[in-house]
Order: sequence, then structure tokens, then C-alpha cells
Amino acid sequence: MKAAFYQEKGKFSIGESPIEKPGKGEVRLSVQYCGVCGTDVHIFHGVMDKRVSPPQVIGHEASAVVAELGEGVDNVAVGDEVAVRPLRFGAEHSFDKGHKHVGKNLKFIGIDSAGAFQQNWVVPAYTLHKLPEGLSLKHGAFIEPLAVACHDVKIGRVTKGENALVIGGGPIGTLIAFVLKEKGANVFISEVNATRIGMLKDLGFEVINPAQESLKDSITRLTDEKMIDCAFEVSGSQAGVEAMTEVVNVRGRIVMVAIHGGGTRNVDLFKFFWSEVELLGARLYEEEDYEEALRIAASGTVPFEQLITKVGGLEQIQEVFDEIDKNPAGMKYLIDINQ
Amino acid sequence: MKAAFYQEKGKFSIGESPIEKPGKGEVRLSVQYCGVCGTDVHIFHGVMDKRVSPPQVIGHEASAVVAELGEGVDNVAVGDEVAVRPLRFGAEHSFDKGHKHVGKNLKFIGIDSAGAFQQNWVVPAYTLHKLPEGLSLKHGAFIEPLAVACHDVKIGRVTKGENALVIGGGPIGTLIAFVLKEKGANVFISEVNATRIGMLKDLGFEVINPAQESLKDSITRLTDEKMIDCAFEVSGSQAGVEAMTEVVNVRGRIVMVAIHGGGTRNVDLFKFFWSEVELLGARLYEEEDYEEALRIAASGTVPFEQLITKVGGLEQIQEVFDEIDKNPAGMKYLIDINQ
Ligand SMILES: NC(=O)c1ccc[n+]([C@@H]2O[C@H](COP(=O)([O-])OP(=O)(O)OC[C@H]3O[C@@H](n4cnc5c(N)ncnc54)[C@H](O)[C@@H]3O)[C@@H](O)[C@H]2O)c1
Ligand SMILES: NC(=O)c1ccc[n+]([C@@H]2O[C@H](COP(=O)([O-])OP(=O)(O)OC[C@H]3O[C@@H](n4cnc5c(N)ncnc54)[C@H](O)[C@@H]3O)[C@@H](O)[C@H]2O)c1
Ligand SMILES: [Zn+2]
Ligand SMILES: [Zn+2]
Repeated sequence: MKAAFYQEKGKFSIGESPIEKPGKGEVRLSVQYCGVCGTDVHIFHGVMDKRVSPPQVIGHEASAVVAELGEGVDNVAVGDEVAVRPLRFGAEHSFDKGHKHVGKNLKFIGIDSAGAFQQNWVVPAYTLHKLPEGLSLKHGAFIEPLAVACHDVKIGRVTKGENALVIGGGPIGTLIAFVLKEKGANVFISEVNATRIGMLKDLGFEVINPAQESLKDSITRLTDEKMIDCAFEVSGSQAGVEAMTEVVNVRGRIVMVAIHGGGTRNVDLFKFFWSEVELLGARLYEEEDYEEALRIAASGTVPFEQLITKVGGLEQIQEVFDEIDKNPAGMKYLIDINQ
Repeated sequence: MKAAFYQEKGKFSIGESPIEKPGKGEVRLSVQYCGVCGTDVHIFHGVMDKRVSPPQVIGHEASAVVAELGEGVDNVAVGDEVAVRPLRFGAEHSFDKGHKHVGKNLKFIGIDSAGAFQQNWVVPAYTLHKLPEGLSLKHGAFIEPLAVACHDVKIGRVTKGENALVIGGGPIGTLIAFVLKEKGANVFISEVNATRIGMLKDLGFEVINPAQESLKDSITRLTDEKMIDCAFEVSGSQAGVEAMTEVVNVRGRIVMVAIHGGGTRNVDLFKFFWSEVELLGARLYEEEDYEEALRIAASGTVPFEQLITKVGGLEQIQEVFDEIDKNPAGMKYLIDINQ
């Protein structure tokens, strides 16, 4: 079978790989589509070489068909169409307080072990969620990032009629915006990239460019001074961190989705005290977030087709990653594993 | 009647003032004791001259006896012993979402209008809470800061058996520690001032000096790697802000009690994402926090007498504030208004 291997900074290779048999509690999947995540692009840039083990198959936004069951598996059957929740739970630790999806011993499948950019993929059966009737395998590749968005909105406790602001309208921010819309929130997006602003407006969103107009003034006007009940920091920028405290109202929530690595950020802690603001960290997803993502995907409220920038075959993976590097405004690139 | 007026940076004067009649919905109090808050010391240092209107009577940690009722007041009777919740609620604003105690139009009595360092004080009747049987007027002056502590612990959602860390064992941090103890939490205090460390140990607390041993290592050892479920940042320092993210576990909460004014702080936002940590701003108190403070005060679990550094008469207010400046390790100074 064919597999794509991340070799080193900037380089994939396509190779033949033996088909592995699923062990006890495992399933062999025939992978169908796998989206390219920002993390995959980071790996491609060579900045995660300490965590991955090249040559390694990466990829974790997968849809698949169940091909073979290991011993004791009864939650899926051969032929089932599934999305994969790429988390391998490790030993429990008191530090985790039962929150396995962010536990000390969690391993991420597709980073810490082989991922989905290959035709056959063996994963624990508990990672599988059946796709609902009517959701295509192509769109099933969106379940993983959509589950991130569902988790973030859940952490933000957003309710119908609330004002919500997404800071950073990349793939994750855009999916958060759709989940917010589905919840009945009044959604605003702050974005600085002109191409993405155009796309987001075409998708029907109210978009503010903070480089062209004051975000605080715009939000003040658009919300009639009520301001934002829940803001999502998804830009990963210092400017986004400044914006998040400027726009929220009393007891406003800020969900920290972006990964602010490599140092501290300057944060206005006075605002937290003064208006009893909450900052809520959000990472990955729990089982129920996948169920919610599947429900929302089945409802048809997310126009997945419009979010796809390009679909490339597995053998074109190098070209796809090279193109992503040249087109930072692209939204979602998918790899068609069997093309 | 006698009143103490803040005149200008570093200076109080004692004067005679006419006794005011309470208006509709107001009450005239015969003030008994009033604690000195860090904010009063800030005012004394002249740094809040833009907000206060010298010559002004300040002070807001008061116990009193009801002396005269204005029209329509029926929640208290003449002779009642009370604590004062020094908040004057203004017009509601949609920004506030009903949270009056942190509303846009809130005025703080004792800063934005005349305070309790005077023999007679007219306040809205809704600010009054009757002292429970057996709680002295002297200790009644602790209800205001104790209500701050009750509010903070409520915001932190601390439950029995959880590990809680108070960063900064000043008057507010110490009261938070007592409220945490009353809730059945395992309480740790981080403090750098040797005199205060001694006092806190005498009060029975486990105290860590982060200038002498690694706070993270100590907490790791003392909690058997479970770390802290809820940390309270009450030091107001950058070092405290660094410590708060180092010690909390998965879904750990950090309550921001300290007022970090005058600029931003460097915050490890990665930790918020990685372990789904929450930062919860806390300001002042709500009505129910006063009720909780009265309940805890009546229960006898807070050794108020041990927290009193000195009681001075109203005419000695200048000496008391001068002494506070020379003794930053002092805990609570009280003014006996009629001495
Ligand atoms: N919490 C999680 O589990 C999780 C999961 C996936 C991704 N992430 C993180 O979420 C973030 C977003 O992911 P993505 O794939 O959408 O990334 P992305 O880089 O494609 O999107 C970020 C967007 O923010 C915009 N932006 C930059 N500065 C801005 C500013 N000052 N104001 C407004 N917008 C600004 C950029 O133009 C870009 O469109 C990343 O930090 C990623 O690591 C977190
Ligand atoms: N949220 C509210 O409504 C509210 C109400 C009252 C006071 N406050 C604020 O709470 C804070 C505490 O008030 P206070 O009167 O107890 O002040 P304080 O200055 O007496 O106490 C702060 C304590 O922190 C200690 N400290 C300093 N650096 C430290 C460090 N790195 N690690 C550990 N301890 C350290 C100091 O030695 C001191 O004992 C202040 O910022 C005050 O403005 C907030
Ligand atoms: Zn991803
Ligand atoms: Zn005070």
C-alpha cells in the first residue's frame, strides 16, 4: 500500500508500506480523505522534528472506511464510514482530574505515532465515530477540526442571542464562527488578511479588519455598546491578545484557542479584575464534541464545499504542501488518499 | 461631630462637621470601627487624587449602629448593629448584564463619596447588613474585606478536599486562606515577607517562601504531583503572575484578585491552552458574599483578634497612617471612631 512519509524539513516521499494487522481493540482503516492541519504545516517546516520521528506518516483529519477488526472490537463493523478522533489515552494521573483529552500521558496520533496520509491505518477502536447518513467521506475529513470548534464553543458556554467575536478567521476560526452561528449567537469575525476577509464575507459573516478600523469602536457600534459576551482568540498574535480584553463586557468570556508558544504575552490583567472577565483555555476535543460535530455536519449548516481550497492526491502531497506555503490565505486543503 | 478629612498626599486633618439628615431610603449611622484598606493607603499616598475630592472623608470597612432612619426604610431599626456594603448602584447598562457590583455606573462609597472615618455617616439603607448575635462591632469592621475573600473563593468554585494556593499573604490573601480553610480545602500560602510568613505560620498555615525555595517544586512535593486546583493571585506582582500558571493542574482555576494596574503583565498563555486552565477575574462582592462573610464571622473560624495589628482613635488617624507606611508587614489597622 501507498504511504506518504515526512522525511525532513520541506520534504515528503511516497513509498510502499506493508499492511499492518489490527491488534486487540484495534481497527484497520482504509483511509479516504485527510485534511491538512496547521500543525502538519509546522511539521513540514521542520519545527517539530523533536516530537515526530522522520521518516513518519503524519495527518490526523481523516475520514475512512473500516477494513478489518481486531479482537474484541464491537463498536464498528467492516464497511462503516468513520471519522477518527486521533487521541491515544495513556495512564491516568491525578494532575489530569479525569480529563483524558488533555492528560499528562496523552499521545496524539499523527504526531506522536503514524498518521493518516497512507492507504491503511491501524488505530484504537475507541477513536472511531460513525459518519451520519448523507455526510460524504470528503466532508467527513472536516469532523476533526469541526470538533475543535465545537469544543471551543462549549468551553465558552455561548448561548442563543449572545454576541461572539472570533479573532482570526483561519480554518479553525471560521469553523468556530459556523458553530456559533448554529448556536444562535450574533457572530463577528476580526481578520487582517484581505483574501480571507473576502471569503468570510462571501460566507455571510460580519467581518472587521482591525488594521483598517478600530475593532473596539466597530464592536461598540455594532453591538450598541453591549460589547462581546464571548471572544475567541484564534489568531495566535499579540495584537489578538490585546483585542480580546478590549472588547468583552462584564463577566465576558475569552476562549484561548490559539497556541501562544515560545514565550509569554502581554496581557491586560486589570480588565480581568475590573469586569470579572474569564479566560478559558481550550485544547482539542472530548468524545461529546465529536458527536456534536457530527450532528452539525449532518445538519448541513456548514458549507464544507466552499471551505475547500483544493483536493490533491496522495502522490501529490509534496506539491500540495508547497502550494500551502505559497498561499497562506488558502482555507482547507484535502488529500484524497486513493486518488 | 468629629470627622477625619484626607487633605492631600500624606495628610489628614480632624474637623467638625454638621450632622446630616438621612433622605428617603437612607440611614444615618453612628460609625463604630473602620478598618484601613490598602486603597485608603493609596489615597493617602496621593495617587488617587483624580478620583477622590479632597478634603474628603474616606474609609469603607465599617461597623456601625443605626442612629436615624430616612423615609421608607424598613430593613433596619434604630439601634441595630450593622456592617456596610459600600456600593452605590447606578443606572443599569447592557454592558453589565445585571452584575451591579461591577457595573459601569457603580460608585464606591468612601472613594467616590464620603466614607466612614467620621462619627455620623449617611448611606443608602440597601447597603446595610445586620451583624449576627455575638459578633462584636470591632470584629464587624472585618466584614467588608472578609466579603471580598468570600466572593473570591466563590468565583474560584473551590470545593472540599481541593488544593488551593494563595499567592500573597497580605490582609486579603490571609482572609481568603481562612475562607478556603472553612470550605475544607488544603490551603497553601506563598509569601515573601519574613514577618508575614511568621504570622501566617502562627495562624496555622502551610507557608512557602518562593524567594527561598522553588514554589513549583514545593507544591509538587506537598501535593504529591496533583498540584493546585485553584490559585489566588493576591500579590499584585509579576512574580506572582508567573507562579500562578506554574502550579495549577488540568482545568485548574486562577482567581485574579490583585489589581494589576499601570500596564500589562507577561502571561504564559500556552499553559492556558495546554491544560485548559481558567483565569477568573474577581472584584468586590455581591450581597450574598456579605451574608456568607457574616456566617463565617459568626462561626468563629477566623481569629480576628490575631489579625489586628493596632487600634487607633479617630484623632490619631494621621499617626496610624504614618505607622502603616513604616510597617508594611502590619496586618489590619482599625480606627475606633469614638475613641
Ligand atoms: N486549541 C486547539 O486544540 C487548537 C486546534 C487547532 C489549532 N489551534 C490553533 O488555533 C490557531 C488558529 O489555527 P488556524 O489553522 O485557523 O491558523 P491560521 O494561522 O490559518 O489562522 C489565523 C488567522 O488569524 C489572522 N490574524 C493574524 N493576526 C490577526 C489580528 N491581529 N487580528 C485578527 N486576525 C489576525 C490571520 O490572518 C489568519 O487568518 C493556531 O494558533 C493553531 O495552532 C488550536
Ligand atoms: N478584587 C478586589 O476586589 C480587591 C479588593 C481588595 C484588594 N484587592 C487587591 O488585592 C491585593 C492584595 O491586597 P492586600 O491588601 O492584601 O495587599 P498587600 O500588598 O498587603 O499584600 C500583598 C502580599 O503579597 C506579597 N508578595 C509580593 N510579591 C510576592 C510574590 N512574588 N510571591 C508571594 N507573595 C508576594 C507581599 O509581601 C504582601 O504580603 C492588592 O492588589 C489589592 O489591590 C482587590
Ligand atoms: Zn489539527
Ligand atoms: Zn477596600
